Amino acid sequence: MNNVLRKEAEQIWTAAIQACLPDEAVCTALERLPEVKGRIYLVAIGKAGWKMADTACRLLGDRLFSGIVITKYDHAKGELPRIKTYEAGHPVPDQNTLTATEQVLSMTKDLTADDLVLFLVSGGGSALFESVDCTPEDLQRLTKACLASGASIDEINIVRKHLSRVKGGKFALHCAPAKVFTVLLSDVLGDRPDTIASGPSVPDLSTVEQALSIVQKYGLPLSEQMRSALSEETPKELSNASYFIGGSVRELCRHAAKAAETLGYRPVLLTDHLTCEAREAGAFLASIARTHQDAPSSLAFIAGGETVVHLRGKGLGGRNQELALAAASDLEGLKDTAIFSVGSDGTDGPTDAAGGYVDETTAPHLRSQGVQIPDVLANNDAYHALAKCDSLIFTGATGTNVNDVAVLLIKR
Amino acid sequence: MNNVLRKEAEQIWTAAIQACLPDEAVCTALERLPEVKGRIYLVAIGKAGWKMADTACRLLGDRLFSGIVITKYDHAKGELPRIKTYEAGHPVPDQNTLTATEQVLSMTKDLTADDLVLFLVSGGGSALFESVDCTPEDLQRLTKACLASGASIDEINIVRKHLSRVKGGKFALHCAPAKVFTVLLSDVLGDRPDTIASGPSVPDLSTVEQALSIVQKYGLPLSEQMRSALSEETPKELSNASYFIGGSVRELCRHAAKAAETLGYRPVLLTDHLTCEAREAGAFLASIARTHQDAPSSLAFIAGGETVVHLRGKGLGGRNQELALAAASDLEGLKDTAIFSVGSDGTDGPTDAAGGYVDETTAPHLRSQGVQIPDVLANNDAYHALAKCDSLIFTGATGTNVNDVAVLLIKR
Repeated sequence: MNNVLRKEAEQIWTAAIQACLPDEAVCTALERLPEVKGRIYLVAIGKAGWKMADTACRLLGDRLFSGIVITKYDHAKGELPRIKTYEAGHPVPDQNTLTATEQVLSMTKDLTADDLVLFLVSGGGSALFESVDCTPEDLQRLTKACLASGASIDEINIVRKHLSRVKGGKFALHCAPAKVFTVLLSDVLGDRPDTIASGPSVPDLSTVEQALSIVQKYGLPLSEQMRSALSEETPKELSNASYFIGGSVRELCRHAAKAAETLGYRPVLLTDHLTCEAREAGAFLASIARTHQDAPSSLAFIAGGETVVHLRGKGLGGRNQELALAAASDLEGLKDTAIFSVGSDGTDGPTDAAGGYVDETTAPHLRSQGVQIPDVLANNDAYHALAKCDSLIFTGATGTNVNDVAVLLIKR
Repeated sequence: MNNVLRKEAEQIWTAAIQACLPDEAVCTALERLPEVKGRIYLVAIGKAGWKMADTACRLLGDRLFSGIVITKYDHAKGELPRIKTYEAGHPVPDQNTLTATEQVLSMTKDLTADDLVLFLVSGGGSALFESVDCTPEDLQRLTKACLASGASIDEINIVRKHLSRVKGGKFALHCAPAKVFTVLLSDVLGDRPDTIASGPSVPDLSTVEQALSIVQKYGLPLSEQMRSALSEETPKELSNASYFIGGSVRELCRHAAKAAETLGYRPVLLTDHLTCEAREAGAFLASIARTHQDAPSSLAFIAGGETVVHLRGKGLGGRNQELALAAASDLEGLKDTAIFSVGSDGTDGPTDAAGGYVDETTAPHLRSQGVQIPDVLANNDAYHALAKCDSLIFTGATGTNVNDVAVLLIKR
C-alpha cells in the first residue's frame, strides 16, 4: 500500500466528517442565531437530535428556557438540563412519536413575537415528528397503500405534507408569531430544506390540488377525517422562519476539498449529487485517474452523494466499499494515485466499516492472494476482499449522516 | 428543445469528428514526414486504409514510388495511382489477408537506408495484416481455443504477436534498414501504439517467456511449426521506426474542448478512458450538471472513451443513445444545460444514428407522450424514445473510428 497517500486520504476524510458532526453544525449555526428578547425554546428531531441538543445546551446555558428532543430508540445519551427527551419509532412512527410531537406542539403554542424556537433537524426527522388528524390505523393503512401503489417518493411526500399538522411548514406556522430558527443536518441530496424531514419549518410549494390528484391517481384510501385534513393548504410563505444548513453532503465535499488543498492538492469538485451505481462511479473515477496521470501538480477529484448497489450476490459490503473495489483494477499501474469512498455516518452497508481505500497496489495484492475482483463484485463481497489488503476504512459510528464522499487523489 | 444549445452542441461534435477524419490525420502527419533521399513506399492497413492512402497519394503525388492498401470488403472506393488495393476478411482474417500481406512483405524487402515506408494504420488493422508460419487450419484452431479458454484479450494478443511475422514490431524489423513512419488512427483507449493493430511497427514489451506461459496456462493447441515461431523474440527497440498518432479519442476530446472554448465554454476534460456502463456514465454526467448550476460562466465537461451496454431488452439503441437518454431525467429543471454523446464513426449500435442529445426539455416532452424513461432503458430502446423528441444525432458514416465523446454543456 502507498502509505503516504493512505495517510493523506485519512486526513481528508477525517476533516470532512469532523466538519459535519452535529456539534460542529450547531456551533456554527448558533453564531448566526437571531437576536432574542424573549425566551428560547429548543426542539430537536432526528437521529442526531440528542447530540445537537446537547451542544446547544452547553452553548446557550441559562439562555435556554425549555426544550424537547425526539430521537430514535437508543440514541439518547442521558439527561439534559431543561430538556425532556423522547425516544420513538424509526423508520415507522409509533405512539411515542405522536405523544412526543403533541408535547412539542403544546410547548410552542401561545408564544410571543419576542420568543424564538431553535429547531434542530437531522435525518429521520420525518418519521420522528408527526401529528395527524386521524387514527393510527387509518395512517398505517394509507402508508401501506402508498408503498404498494407505485407512487414516487415525491408524490408520497406531497400527500404526507398535506395530511400532517407539522410537516410542510405547518410547524413554523404553529409557532408564529415566535421566530423559528432551524439548523439542518441534511441527509437529502441537493439540500432542499423542504425535503429534509419533510420541511416542518420551511414554506412548501406543493398544493392541495396536487395532493388530491395523487390520491385519485393511485386510489389511496382516505377516511373522511383525512380528506378534510388534506384540504388544508400548506404555507407558501413564512415570515417568522429562517434556517441554516449546518451539515450536508455539499459541506462534506467542501471540507474534503479544503483538507485536500491544505495537503497540496488542487481540488476539483465533480458533483455532490452522485446517485449512480456504486461500482460504475468507481470505474468513472478510475477513468479520470488514467487520463490525468501527466498532471503537472497534485489533483483531488471529489464526488459526493449516495450511490446505489443492486444486490446480486450474497457477500458482505456496502456502496462505498464497492465503489472503491471497482476502481482498484483500473488503478493498477497508476503511480501515486488512490481512490477512497466513505460514508459520513461511519457504517457502510451492514458492515462495521465506513468505506474503502484503494491504490495501485490493491489489485496486484489481491491477485497474489487468488482474489479475482470481478468475482468479488459479482458476489457483492467487497468487505472481505478489502479486508485482505487492509483497505477497509474504519471510523466507528460518527453520529452524523450527510451521505458519502468519494475522492480520487493524484499526487505529483 | 433548447435550440441555441442544440446548435452549439452540433458545432462541437462536428468539429471534433472532422479533426479525426482519416484525411485530416494524414495531412497533419505528412507535415512531420522525415526527409527521404530514396523511394517512398506506402502500406495502408485497416478500415480507413483506402481513405488514408487516397489522401497520401494526393499529397505526395509523384514522390510516392509504390504502395499497397489492405482494407475490409467494400471499403475500397476506386483505383489509386501506383497503389494495389486488396480487400480482405474482418474481423476474421481470410486467404486474402495472407496473400495481400505477402505482397507487402515482398514489396518492402531489400529496401535501402534511404528508403521510407509510410505505414498508415487504422482500426481493424490487426485482422487485415497478418502472416504466420503455419497452416490456416492450425491458426483457426488456435483462435477458437483462445476465445474459449477464458484468456484475457491482453494475453491473447501476447500469443498472437509472438506467432505473427508482422505484429509486435516485426514488420518494421523486416523493412530495416529503410525508415518506417507510421500514422495511427487509434481505436484503442489510451493510444498505446503497441496495442493499435497489434503494433507491427513499434517495439513490443512482451516476451517469449510470457507467451509460452500463457500457452501453458490455458493449454492452447500449438503445432510444432507454431511452437518454433513463438520462440522468436519480438524487437524491444526499433531505431528505424517512428510514429504519429493522427486521430484518437484523446484528439477527439481535445478538439471537442477546443470547439467548446471557441463558443465561450470553459472546457474541463474529465476523461478519455471512459469504459463504464453507458447509462451510469449518463447519470454521473447529469449529477455533475446539477452541482454546477450556479457556475458563474459557461462550462463544458468532456468524457471520451467507449462505454458498454449490457443488453437486457429487445429494443433498438446504442451506447451513446443510452448514455444521453439516461441523463435526461436528471436534467429536468436545469436551465440551459445539455448532454450529448456521439460515436465518431457515425453509427451507434445497430442504428443509423451516431448518438443522442438531451436537455431540460427532453424528459417532460417524453412524459407528455406517455414515454417512461426507466421502461425505455430497461428495454434498451433509446433509439425510439429519442426519435420521438428529435433527439437523435445523425452524421452519416464518417469514415473514422476513434471511439466516442460525451459532453455536458452548462451555458451561463
